[in-house]
Amino acid sequence: MTRLAEFQSEWIPKLNQQLEDDLTRATNDSEFSDMMKYAVLNGGKRLRPMLSLAAMACFGQKITPSFLKAATAVEWVHSYSLVHDDLPAMDNDLVRRGKPSVHAQFGEAEAILVGDALLTGAFHVLATANDSVVEDEMISAVELLKLSQILSVQSGSLGMVIGQVHDMYNHGKQSKIDETWLIDEVYMPKTGALLGFSALAGTRLSNQQDIDQIGQDRFDTNLAMLTFGYDFGIAFQIQDDLDDFDQDDTEDIMSLPHLIGVPAATQKRDSYLRHARQMLSDVSRHNSKFDRTLLDDFLNLIGDNV
Amino acid sequence: MTRLAEFQSEWIPKLNQQLEDDLTRATNDSEFSDMMKYAVLNGGKRLRPMLSLAAMACFGQKITPSFLKAATAVEWVHSYSLVHDDLPAMDNDLVRRGKPSVHAQFGEAEAILVGDALLTGAFHVLATANDSVVEDEMISAVELLKLSQILSVQSGSLGMVIGQVHDMYNHGKQSKIDETWLIDEVYMPKTGALLGFSALAGTRLSNQQDIDQIGQDRFDTNLAMLTFGYDFGIAFQIQDDLDDFDQDDTEDIMSLPHLIGVPAATQKRDSYLRHARQMLSDVSRHNSKFDRTLLDDFLNLIGDNV
Repeated sequence: MTRLAEFQSEWIPKLNQQLEDDLTRATNDSEFSDMMKYAVLNGGKRLRPMLSLAAMACFGQKITPSFLKAATAVEWVHSYSLVHDDLPAMDNDLVRRGKPSVHAQFGEAEAILVGDALLTGAFHVLATANDSVVEDEMISAVELLKLSQILSVQSGSLGMVIGQVHDMYNHGKQSKIDETWLIDEVYMPKTGALLGFSALAGTRLSNQQDIDQIGQDRFDTNLAMLTFGYDFGIAFQIQDDLDDFDQDDTEDIMSLPHLIGVPAATQKRDSYLRHARQMLSDVSRHNSKFDRTLLDDFLNLIGDNV
Repeated sequence: MTRLAEFQSEWIPKLNQQLEDDLTRATNDSEFSDMMKYAVLNGGKRLRPMLSLAAMACFGQKITPSFLKAATAVEWVHSYSLVHDDLPAMDNDLVRRGKPSVHAQFGEAEAILVGDALLTGAFHVLATANDSVVEDEMISAVELLKLSQILSVQSGSLGMVIGQVHDMYNHGKQSKIDETWLIDEVYMPKTGALLGFSALAGTRLSNQQDIDQIGQDRFDTNLAMLTFGYDFGIAFQIQDDLDDFDQDDTEDIMSLPHLIGVPAATQKRDSYLRHARQMLSDVSRHNSKFDRTLLDDFLNLIGDNV
């Protein structure tokens, strides 16, 4: 059993409980509450909040209740994005994780509103991360406001949303596409941005002042960990496309394997994984407390463990 | 010319400029930028941010750049809600302010994503309200985080979104409807919540500590102004329904005039307007600096000036 597998079996249930508690508080309308919970409490692996928690653990940061709650905000964003992406006007997916998608189950208007509520709720979760937490375990308001700002950038029209916009154009305007455009304008914002947020949030919350003092050459740990998150996200997306490609190579949706072939796409994936490991090496070199094992395990989830 | 009309002619152009500047910064994709601007820069009266600014002015608060920017966040939320409400699965409106609605102009997937981007952007605007502002005119991080929390409550599944959910049920399940339900479960969250936010935000930003000290009987100015915003919002919504009812009384959508008739709905509107004035009187009594004129002018926008 990897360290990550142990870590997951400890923390995924706690993340799910936090999500469920906050979802219960999120509305007084029991019908709508059921819809919101259906969209979120679906047995996901909680990859994004888990990445934040893993970063905290690697930096030796104790995961207190406020840190746990702050880490879940990104999962609300991820969940809303799946609900909206599945809509008939978008990917028109009737099934998600083997069950009817939200609009298939409850209706299209309901799915739009569930998504809107989850996106709004993400910022509520961040703003209330200190609720019911003892004073000396609180996150500063300055830091929570900064995380709210970063989350809005990574998930909005400079991040995830614009990735989805380009992915849509992608389906229609094939002339526009080359490898660089697909990675920089679709994979990076659509998948990389949220995982970048996750790695950065876990890092920022782990009391970065210490680390910056240790690294006397002004090494930017936050930037290295943000980059690690992006690298991981892009490799993860290429792997996802490789998996889909194997299953159905007549799919008319453009993806990296369609564009440059499976061997070249596999090489590209591996180069992002290597770069991610390089980021971890850089962070290790500048911070003696940093134990990279859990984050290496994350990278090992993808591909052939290069 | 009323004081409000003067105030509007001074501040609406500044609000529009702030919105345009922030929209320009919100994305690097020029096509998507045009769509976002189309949705927001549409000649609206900026009722919600204007209410915040008017509250500041009534409390004698100077409207600095950070206050102006913070006041615009609610307009991003309002704008996104119109884009999503117009969607085919929702109200299916092809026209908004005499022009094609966002989905009619750009497509349905685009409209979903424009709405998502605007909602996300609202929280970015709040989190960056102090950008390019001199130190002594900054809003504290504690206050901005609190406003972010309140905005998420008023616009999400305890506020505007749930009002829209109920408004949808409303069309289908007429058995559920009575006057109290319609006002408490539709009008209050759907229209009241954002205007309540606007009045409260302007009040909170006007250095409430002073006022609470003046009122020695622990009068809650924030609560009174929040209630004022709700009262105004509900009266505004009833007036809107009265206007629609006059124009087309075969409309099959349930509204207060359909439910209890025009005279009773008019009385109800007037009772909310009276209650709103009462709130202003209460605030005036507890704060000698408070000049209610601008907010009275807001109430005078509605109905027969009771």
